[in-house]
Amino acid sequence: MNIVLTDLEGVLVPEIWINVAERTGIEELRLTTRDISDYDVLMKKRLGILDDNNLKIQDIQDVISTIDPMEGAVEFLDWLRSETQVIVVSDTFDYFAGPLMKKLKMPTLFCNYLILEENGRVADYRLRQQDGKRHVTLAMKAINFKVVAMGDSYNDVTMLKEADAGILFRPPENVIEEFPQFPVTTQYSEIKAEIQKALERLNREA
Amino acid sequence: MNIVLTDLEGVLVPEIWINVAERTGIEELRLTTRDISDYDVLMKKRLGILDDNNLKIQDIQDVISTIDPMEGAVEFLDWLRSETQVIVVSDTFDYFAGPLMKKLKMPTLFCNYLILEENGRVADYRLRQQDGKRHVTLAMKAINFKVVAMGDSYNDVTMLKEADAGILFRPPENVIEEFPQFPVTTQYSEIKAEIQKALERLNREA
Repeated sequence: MNIVLTDLEGVLVPEIWINVAERTGIEELRLTTRDISDYDVLMKKRLGILDDNNLKIQDIQDVISTIDPMEGAVEFLDWLRSETQVIVVSDTFDYFAGPLMKKLKMPTLFCNYLILEENGRVADYRLRQQDGKRHVTLAMKAINFKVVAMGDSYNDVTMLKEADAGILFRPPENVIEEFPQFPVTTQYSEIKAEIQKALERLNREA
Repeated sequence: MNIVLTDLEGVLVPEIWINVAERTGIEELRLTTRDISDYDVLMKKRLGILDDNNLKIQDIQDVISTIDPMEGAVEFLDWLRSETQVIVVSDTFDYFAGPLMKKLKMPTLFCNYLILEENGRVADYRLRQQDGKRHVTLAMKAINFKVVAMGDSYNDVTMLKEADAGILFRPPENVIEEFPQFPVTTQYSEIKAEIQKALERLNREA
C-alpha cells in the first residue's frame, strides 16, 4: 500500500522557466529564487515580463511544447507506474505543465494554477496551498499509504522529510551537504534501485 | 483547483467478480454483499472458492485480461484527464485491477490489496482503510482541491456525500430513490455535461 510522489522539473523534465527564457531569448526570465528570494515578488516580476513581451498563454505553451522530457524519463515513469501508484507533485503551473504531461503519458499532477484572462493573458497565479508538497505527503499518509518521495532540490526537502523514504535525484552540491540523510542518485537506473529498496522495506514493515 | 474521483467497476469497467464467475463458470463467485452482507465473510468465502478451484492469481489475471472497459469508457477517461486531475477510487484489489488499468491507459488508482503467496495463491486481502472512498475525498479536500465524485452504487455514497459535487452513473433504482440529491446519468455524454457543470460552478466559487 505504497505510493511514489515525484517532483517534475529537474527530475522528469528540464526547468521550465529557464527553457522558456532560452527559447524566447528573454534573458530576464532566467531569474530564480536565488536572485529574488521572495517567491511572490519573483512571480509578479515574471508575469510582468510576459506582459512586456506581449506573451500570452498560447505563446508560452507553444514554447513549452518544444521541450522534451529528460532522456530516459518516459521509460522510468512507465516502469514506476507499473510498479506502484504515482503522483507528480510540482510547484509549476497547470497550463505550463500541460504539454509536458502529454509527453509523460498523463500521470496525475498536483501543482499550482494560473489565472488567465479571456484573451490568454496570464493575469495572476495561485498556489494550491503553502508548503504544498509536504501537505500532499501528509494527505497520502492519512489514507494509509506508505510514501516514497523523490526530488532534486530545496523545494522538495519538506516532502522528502515527511515521506517514509526520501530520495534525491541529481541534486546540487549544497543540498547534498545540507541533507546527508537522503540517498543521492544521478541515473534513472540508480533511482529505480533506491525506490525498489525503499518499497521492499516498507512492504516488510507493513 | 479541482479533481475528479471516479469509481471503477460499473462506471469504467464491468463488475470484476461477476465476470470472473461467468468466464470461469464458477457460479458461486457471483455472490455479492446482497447474499452475504458481512464483507469479510464474503471475501473469505470468495478466496476459499478460488482455493477449491485451484485458481492462482495468474489464472484470475488471465481471465480479467479478457474483460474490456465499458464501451466509451476509454474515450471518456481520456477527455476527463485532459480537463482536470483524476484518481480512480475503487474497492477492488491491486492485482485484479492491473490488466484493466493498462486498457484505461494507467490512471492513478487508489484501491485495496491482495496478500499473495510465492506460488500465486491468494492468501488474504487488506483494505487500505475502512470507508476508504470517503477518506480519499477528505484527503483531497485537506490539500485544497474541490472534489467531484462519481460512482454507481451504495459503496460510493459516502464519497459522493463528502465531495463538493457528487454524480451517479447508471445506479440501481433503490440508490436513485434513496439519494435524490445526486444527479443521475446513464450515458458518458450526460456525465460529461454534469462534470463540466460542476467544475464551472466550483471554479466560480473558488
